[in-house]
Amino acid sequence: MLYLIGLGLSHETDITVRGLETVKKCKRVYLEAYTSILMAADKSSLEKFYGKEIILADRELVETGADEILEGADKDDIAFLVVGDVFGATTHTDLVLRAKELGIKYESIHNASVMNAVGACGLQLYQFGQTVSLVFFTETWKPDSFYAKIMENRKIGLHTLLLLDIKVKEQSIENMARGRLIYEPPRYMDISTAAKQLLEIEEIRKEQAYTPETPCVAVSRLGSPTQTFKAGTLKELSEYDAGAPLHSLVMLGRQVHDLELEYLLQFCDDEKTFREKVAADQEFFKPPPYVPPEEEEFSD
Amino acid sequence: MLYLIGLGLSHETDITVRGLETVKKCKRVYLEAYTSILMAADKSSLEKFYGKEIILADRELVETGADEILEGADKDDIAFLVVGDVFGATTHTDLVLRAKELGIKYESIHNASVMNAVGACGLQLYQFGQTVSLVFFTETWKPDSFYAKIMENRKIGLHTLLLLDIKVKEQSIENMARGRLIYEPPRYMDISTAAKQLLEIEEIRKEQAYTPETPCVAVSRLGSPTQTFKAGTLKELSEYDAGAPLHSLVMLGRQVHDLELEYLLQFCDDEKTFREKVAADQEFFKPPPYVPPEEEEFSD
Repeated sequence: MLYLIGLGLSHETDITVRGLETVKKCKRVYLEAYTSILMAADKSSLEKFYGKEIILADRELVETGADEILEGADKDDIAFLVVGDVFGATTHTDLVLRAKELGIKYESIHNASVMNAVGACGLQLYQFGQTVSLVFFTETWKPDSFYAKIMENRKIGLHTLLLLDIKVKEQSIENMARGRLIYEPPRYMDISTAAKQLLEIEEIRKEQAYTPETPCVAVSRLGSPTQTFKAGTLKELSEYDAGAPLHSLVMLGRQVHDLELEYLLQFCDDEKTFREKVAADQEFFKPPPYVPPEEEEFSD
Repeated sequence: MLYLIGLGLSHETDITVRGLETVKKCKRVYLEAYTSILMAADKSSLEKFYGKEIILADRELVETGADEILEGADKDDIAFLVVGDVFGATTHTDLVLRAKELGIKYESIHNASVMNAVGACGLQLYQFGQTVSLVFFTETWKPDSFYAKIMENRKIGLHTLLLLDIKVKEQSIENMARGRLIYEPPRYMDISTAAKQLLEIEEIRKEQAYTPETPCVAVSRLGSPTQTFKAGTLKELSEYDAGAPLHSLVMLGRQVHDLELEYLLQFCDDEKTFREKVAADQEFFKPPPYVPPEEEEFSD
């Protein structure tokens, strides 16, 4: 049996009781270690907590080594641990499909992910449009597919969750060219970098999918003991030091409910200013005002 | 301290280890008992598992009795348990705001909810637009605000998660009129009813937000041992018996990735037919094909 088990967001103890019982009975335990990290735990603290050895599964292993992971899973129980919830990334449906081909049964044990826990900032989950990803820009590579998606969301009034890039086990171009398996230290995009990249693309495209004055919420260390929210404009957040990773960003849509706004006011510098920024931003993508049809005039 | 704790979707043991440790140390434990249910657990099995008495919090208590829930929370620890994740419903941000007013600290312990666990059907979470709710129609009341939202999602190619109505502790009109506190048995909308209601509204509005042939995924008992997915057209699902509750429904958008489709094929009756239905549905809301600008003809 293959068990796909979500670990939640932060602590060793964020695993569910059922997840923990399952890990304990598994013969091999893999930890998917390249799309996210647990903020308050690492391999050794997890091993201690589970009383089990953990095998780190990097991108190569997950994407090309499914058969290695699944070896013996027709007889033994194998656990595949994923930070957050199980089905965040494509590659894990690959693993399940491969298991099915091999006649191996699977079960998933779900957990919180940023996709639902972000509701803790006070914005309602059903007011979010599609989630977008923001990758680190380089001098020559500034992928901006997020721009059209944010535009689509904001045109219909919805909030946007932006997931920020995580670079784990990346090689420098030089090391890659020379075939040296030397990896760069992990990098996690922070709020300020994300906001600056967003502003850079708006400056180039000038289609006003958003502006420097668009209200956003900086989400830091969601689900951890030091979880913090900061509400401010995109420009303000481009100067904001959100502290240790992981960070995400939410850009507000026009449909801000009074209860949502009231909740966000806890997290802004100045309530009056923030209210004004939200009101001003609501003018974008506003449907045209209703004009009643002209009354016909009858000649007398 | 007020602890808001998500319980996940199905079993007593779907609570996180940290959540369980917290419940055990709390002086009073409330269970929000009107927006959803745990599928494989009830009040008494939870009480046994926690070794604690549980106070059921119905809508009246949560919406008007915040001070009763929060009583003594400045000194003692109080747990407020929510099926799924903590911030699915508006009312819980109310509770947090009231706690803040009273100077009571709070912490949330997240868990899986249908909003992220639905990824288990193989459709990618970042391809979903806004989530919509479907309530039971009556003879005279057929609220259809979902229609415009599905249209918005599908216009930009996105999938839609439809949450289906749950009626707990509802009074009949007669009992309400007579002031009798007699409640109807709980009702959970099933897939077939949901699909029929969707078809009914499309027949009235005829704007083709979707058609009877639009591919959907029936999601039954998500996160429970009997979790089932069924892929088919809306019309097919209107005849589908999905078994015991809880159910949700996903309507596909045009942007179906090959990997998503491949995964869904496990859940349909006939692969060839389902592929054809998906291809046909992709013709809706398709952007117009690119036409190169006409070359200028020079007179010779």
